[in-house]
Amino acid sequence: MTASTVDTSSLSPAQARARFRLGVISPTTGWCTGATQANLVAVPADWAYDVLLFCLRNPKPCPVLDVTDRGVPRTVLATGADLRTDLPRYRVWRDGELVDEPTAVIELWRDDLVALLIGCSFTFETALLAAGVPLRHIATHRNVAMYRTNRACRPAGQLHGPLVVSMRPTPDHLLDTAVKVTARTPAAHGAPVHVGDPAALGIPDLAHPDFGDPIEVCPGETPVFWACGVTPQAVLMASRPPFAITHAPGHMLITDAADRDYQIE
Amino acid sequence: MTASTVDTSSLSPAQARARFRLGVISPTTGWCTGATQANLVAVPADWAYDVLLFCLRNPKPCPVLDVTDRGVPRTVLATGADLRTDLPRYRVWRDGELVDEPTAVIELWRDDLVALLIGCSFTFETALLAAGVPLRHIATHRNVAMYRTNRACRPAGQLHGPLVVSMRPTPDHLLDTAVKVTARTPAAHGAPVHVGDPAALGIPDLAHPDFGDPIEVCPGETPVFWACGVTPQAVLMASRPPFAITHAPGHMLITDAADRDYQIE
Repeated sequence: MTASTVDTSSLSPAQARARFRLGVISPTTGWCTGATQANLVAVPADWAYDVLLFCLRNPKPCPVLDVTDRGVPRTVLATGADLRTDLPRYRVWRDGELVDEPTAVIELWRDDLVALLIGCSFTFETALLAAGVPLRHIATHRNVAMYRTNRACRPAGQLHGPLVVSMRPTPDHLLDTAVKVTARTPAAHGAPVHVGDPAALGIPDLAHPDFGDPIEVCPGETPVFWACGVTPQAVLMASRPPFAITHAPGHMLITDAADRDYQIE
Repeated sequence: MTASTVDTSSLSPAQARARFRLGVISPTTGWCTGATQANLVAVPADWAYDVLLFCLRNPKPCPVLDVTDRGVPRTVLATGADLRTDLPRYRVWRDGELVDEPTAVIELWRDDLVALLIGCSFTFETALLAAGVPLRHIATHRNVAMYRTNRACRPAGQLHGPLVVSMRPTPDHLLDTAVKVTARTPAAHGAPVHVGDPAALGIPDLAHPDFGDPIEVCPGETPVFWACGVTPQAVLMASRPPFAITHAPGHMLITDAADRDYQIE
């Protein structure tokens, strides 16, 4: 089953979730224009305190939009949604190792799981495009380029790991706009963590991202780095909880919330 | 020992904390201009998950600026500060009842305490005054008026309670400015939760606040209501953890952070 014959940008979030529940598999980029998409991280309750603390201490990479009650796969951000079926694809982690990428996790769900929904760069990309800032990875239908940095996140209990950033080449005359527009979405990573020389973040070569696709930086452009929602997955890999479920990269939860609700005017 | 002979507005945060450590007792309003002040809530570790979750689910009344490691009375927001001595006055709670208001809590501190530092309206009041919005409670040297509302916070585990709001009478031609300016401080309660008729929040009479002082609303002004940092104390009283330490109202932690660091331009 594919979504290729549908204009996915005009679906409602509930319609999109129903399709994923029925088995549609697709990255969610471009789906449900204006609806806020979220990263999913679910861990056993005995790890949940450290995960919450980690997010509170590292709000730029890990802006928390909602936390579920223990064992309950429901969120206030998506009426009627079942977090075990309504994302197009999941990742299952055991002891920090990726072990499966299923399209539903009903059998894997546990009564002690707590799920965090974390803000996603799609929210600020909507705002950037609206402000006239071009995004080459979208124009060229690629994934954004992401890099591990030499900046450690603030650890929390058993959780530790590097800050991961995404990079968007930005025309020099729009740098100020890009900083200001994204500063107004603190629930979606906020202002850049760095503008300019990648070496300042310990990134040796922009042509070799750690995640996603390489994106060319052209003359008259400057690389701009934002805290990235992949950070929690990198931290899970580094910290090795016995069990975790996340979304598969690019296969997000589409919530009923609007991107504009997270935009400070 | 009093602070009456000192210009407290020009002290550095470290100087102010050193005075409180030596025994100076004073509300912190007007101290250390531009430095961010914070509410303190410390609870035993077995309540900390619920408190963190409560704050994440109720970010407008409970914007978390920092969370300490278990048992460690130190924060990244105030170099060298000891959270047990460096606030001018504390409140001690047992089973939800206020039992003492000491000026230090060294003997009461426990190895299992976790402290949360929560954003404070002083941060957005600085911004309001800078934008030309007058604040009558400051001009008349009174405490802001605070009210319990009929809006329940989202509960979290054992924690539940009403949203508490603060009210500032605002000239009608500055309502738009007041909303916009405070929307830019999401770490200090953000935009108002309500503008206008207090009955919409279940407040029967503005002349009888639940906390603080009554503040007159004059002709040509509208009452504006913001989520209030007293909410966590009201929730502790309602939820009755066996032990908690908070700051005494108005006697905040003065951090090294700058109000402008929490202001989105």
